[in-house]
Amino acid sequence: MLRVTLAQINVTVGDLPGNQKKILDYLEKAKTLKSDIVVFPELALTGYPPEDLLYKEHFVRDNLKSLKEIAATVKDLVVVLGFVDIDKNKNLYNAAAVITKGKVQGVYHKHDLPNYGVFDEKRYFTEGVQHPLFLFNDMCFGVNICEDIWQDEGIYLSQAQNGAMLLLNLSSSPYDYEKLERREKLLIKRAKECKAYICYANLVGGQDELVFDGGSFVVSPSGKILARAEQFTEDLLVVDLPLDDERKKRRGPVKMIDLPTEGELIGRIRIDAHKNIMPRMQQDERIFKALILGTRDYVLKNGFKKVLIGLSGGIDSSLVAVIAREAVGCENVIGITMPSQFSSAETRGDAQAIAENLGIEFKETPIKEINDVYLKALAPGFSGLPSNVAEENLQARVRGNILMAYSNKFGWLLLTTGNKSEIAVGYCTLYGDMSGGFAVIKDLPKGKVYEISRLANDILGPVIPESVFDRPPTAELRPNQKDQDTLPPYDLLDKILQAYVEDHRSLAAISKKFGNPQVVKDVIRMVDSSEYKRRQAPPGIKITPRAFGKDWRLPMTNKYREI
Amino acid sequence: MLRVTLAQINVTVGDLPGNQKKILDYLEKAKTLKSDIVVFPELALTGYPPEDLLYKEHFVRDNLKSLKEIAATVKDLVVVLGFVDIDKNKNLYNAAAVITKGKVQGVYHKHDLPNYGVFDEKRYFTEGVQHPLFLFNDMCFGVNICEDIWQDEGIYLSQAQNGAMLLLNLSSSPYDYEKLERREKLLIKRAKECKAYICYANLVGGQDELVFDGGSFVVSPSGKILARAEQFTEDLLVVDLPLDDERKKRRGPVKMIDLPTEGELIGRIRIDAHKNIMPRMQQDERIFKALILGTRDYVLKNGFKKVLIGLSGGIDSSLVAVIAREAVGCENVIGITMPSQFSSAETRGDAQAIAENLGIEFKETPIKEINDVYLKALAPGFSGLPSNVAEENLQARVRGNILMAYSNKFGWLLLTTGNKSEIAVGYCTLYGDMSGGFAVIKDLPKGKVYEISRLANDILGPVIPESVFDRPPTAELRPNQKDQDTLPPYDLLDKILQAYVEDHRSLAAISKKFGNPQVVKDVIRMVDSSEYKRRQAPPGIKITPRAFGKDWRLPMTNKYREI
Repeated sequence: MLRVTLAQINVTVGDLPGNQKKILDYLEKAKTLKSDIVVFPELALTGYPPEDLLYKEHFVRDNLKSLKEIAATVKDLVVVLGFVDIDKNKNLYNAAAVITKGKVQGVYHKHDLPNYGVFDEKRYFTEGVQHPLFLFNDMCFGVNICEDIWQDEGIYLSQAQNGAMLLLNLSSSPYDYEKLERREKLLIKRAKECKAYICYANLVGGQDELVFDGGSFVVSPSGKILARAEQFTEDLLVVDLPLDDERKKRRGPVKMIDLPTEGELIGRIRIDAHKNIMPRMQQDERIFKALILGTRDYVLKNGFKKVLIGLSGGIDSSLVAVIAREAVGCENVIGITMPSQFSSAETRGDAQAIAENLGIEFKETPIKEINDVYLKALAPGFSGLPSNVAEENLQARVRGNILMAYSNKFGWLLLTTGNKSEIAVGYCTLYGDMSGGFAVIKDLPKGKVYEISRLANDILGPVIPESVFDRPPTAELRPNQKDQDTLPPYDLLDKILQAYVEDHRSLAAISKKFGNPQVVKDVIRMVDSSEYKRRQAPPGIKITPRAFGKDWRLPMTNKYREI
Repeated sequence: MLRVTLAQINVTVGDLPGNQKKILDYLEKAKTLKSDIVVFPELALTGYPPEDLLYKEHFVRDNLKSLKEIAATVKDLVVVLGFVDIDKNKNLYNAAAVITKGKVQGVYHKHDLPNYGVFDEKRYFTEGVQHPLFLFNDMCFGVNICEDIWQDEGIYLSQAQNGAMLLLNLSSSPYDYEKLERREKLLIKRAKECKAYICYANLVGGQDELVFDGGSFVVSPSGKILARAEQFTEDLLVVDLPLDDERKKRRGPVKMIDLPTEGELIGRIRIDAHKNIMPRMQQDERIFKALILGTRDYVLKNGFKKVLIGLSGGIDSSLVAVIAREAVGCENVIGITMPSQFSSAETRGDAQAIAENLGIEFKETPIKEINDVYLKALAPGFSGLPSNVAEENLQARVRGNILMAYSNKFGWLLLTTGNKSEIAVGYCTLYGDMSGGFAVIKDLPKGKVYEISRLANDILGPVIPESVFDRPPTAELRPNQKDQDTLPPYDLLDKILQAYVEDHRSLAAISKKFGNPQVVKDVIRMVDSSEYKRRQAPPGIKITPRAFGKDWRLPMTNKYREI
């Protein structure tokens, strides 16, 4: 029986001393739990992704120093830890150290480097070519890293074929709403292919636009999930694997690193694996949790305590306020409403009701007078011209300024409240409602905003008033304005956007699927011509398979037009 | 004698019909010039870099359709044209088509895909593995693409060793201030290594943050530059190469595609290559030209006619106004000055003088009244707190709003005027002076701003008044404010920034070089903590080897601190 512990930790990019301390803390816990092997996630030491920090030679050097210090503390445990390795030609590797008896006994270099979507690993790393296997008291195991197990017939297969009965996969796999199912399905397939146990140790936590969702798990050679850690929080997953009987049955001609472990493993109390399986959350609950974790970690890891939200009484800012409270606590959230002459009594009332329901601080700063002074100052230049989007944007920017003034004065992080549908078509004002340090629901289509808001009320009680759900969406920038004066109905819009943005489908294909070729064409034109706005938008939490962030790199200057 | 023509064209990303038309126009010109071979730059058909447009299958299909249409028009010429190829497994290739007699006779796939700096080619393309050579009336030549010739012992060498006496390199090589010398030095070395003629056909034009500088050239086997095209403008470079005598001397065992050309080449009037060498511009003149071209192309390719600049009377906005006028003409530039109670009569006067000297439209909108109304509205929230950066930022944002109101009302593109030193240390206001669609001098350190301004006056006459050069830099956001109240002297600051930002040097190394460890530490802290601002900054023209754009990907959430 072998006791493997997956240390699903939340580290911070670049925080070598902090991450080192956390790793040591978890090693203590693992020792208390009488673990044989402890596995940490991919690049657990540096945080993931370290991006251009990797171009700093001193950063890589400091990471090696941390690794050495950690290794020196390890006695009988076998520790598998993600770090950045470097060779004598200064090539960098996304690496895993296998540590025991005070030193690094062997190193694995990631073979398959993802360079698509949000990933840029070929920008930094060289592909590994060696594949050592490891012997733990004569039991052979292999180590691989994240993408290594996603590519068909990858290194994992040769590791199994050469004798590994246990594969340890270190991952930092970013969350999207479909990821968990894909991941578990894949790993079940891999375990069967390999006829080996697979332990999948995933990172947890928010890093800029990415959330790592944890949910580490263990699959048996027959494809059964034996254990699953919690999602969206740190966890220590402990499993006892009955590996003794099969030892030595398989052995290939590859390099084996025989770890200096002591004698035979003695019998252990077996943890009942079936009680160790945390249930998978429902998809919408996962979205809600991802938004909370992503927000909390952006706020706290960047040294903020309090956050600020412009509350309009609409669904978007209401949901952001709920998420913010769940993330940092009601005492750390301030809502400000900034009514103009176009704001209805209902929306002002709803903004206040939400603040009260959430128990957050509430402020009001009317903007009409400021707006009027601007219009007076601009009158000589604008004389004779009808009011249009320039005046609408101005109001949004006055609100943005007030929020930023509070943010600058008190050091509160301004949370932006725009949703994915808006930012896709550019139905938002640069330096206005787009102002802020972190755009919480930037990757939630409008329809999803309603669904998650509904779920939030189900979980937390009716914090968002029903009137907010019922009122047709409006920017309230001119009399009786409705979003649907300018945009197609959101249910159609969201479908078109999913096809165009997430799936890169063509005008022809989308029109064929949903009809309305003129509407589709208009939407595509709006998306294409808003690229400059998105380029200046604050970062937000990736929820869908393709968010407007690192996985969306369209040129601004782009004359491609589908006829 | 073989007549090779390099078509150094300025195309637009995604504009397949427009690019196709331009290619056909240049083919007409080349025919008139009795060329044998015409070479276009890398990905000339799609524009470079097409980025995530490549994820659209229909875009790739449309590019192939354009290629076929172009090929159908080609008769006796041999045309080498950059396009995107796709194989049956849907792998994409950065490719060159060799066309004659109405069809594509052979295709080369780029071998070395750059995936560093501003490049993401491994995100999209598969590395080529084949290397066909081509026979033109028994004369063997090889085709390779950009990076292929930068990596030591690359495909270029095997092409030469297998018989190519002429190498055609299709490039889209982005400008930086050191690039031209590096490029020419390298190609001279390669020509000698290969004992072959090298024709280097480079793209020209601006594409978002990149400028391609042209300057296509031809090197002889002895390493002599035989011809050089103009820089920063379209050009057609024609050379006659005396290849007849050496034919057939070398031939390797690789695949040769014998082009269906007709009989022997007949004698031609030889163009005197020595008269064909455009002189290299001086480094500062190249910077000035790059800024003008980058601005012009961003403005015009994005469908704008006029641009707007906030004129403060300082050196940054003065230089941007000069560049703008050179880019789009004085009738298309509007300068607005927005004095507050902190603005001096001198800076207001200088702003107006610059507008008059440049012959651009000039407007004035005072901001004091607007600012006062804001302060009144914020007074309840700010009561008892001293005025600080919140109030300073507010003024900058009022100015940003006025400029954006004009931009929105009239469709003028707002040019941002911040320099690299400011944006590096965060000495700029998000949504304030950082507002705008294009940040012209974003990659010019402050010291360089003065140098280029001086050069502009030398070239254009004294358009920027001497008082602007003489006055100590100030943001004019509080009484008697000077930049050097907050920042180290710019000459020291710029040196530290170059070491930290461009060269990724450590605190220890920089302090060792320039002394002042506390200043270096402060600067590093300011740079690190401004990442969130840069993430929301408008794009600007890359001038240095590492700009704050695609070649700077630091995490915002980043706790790496050098002790």
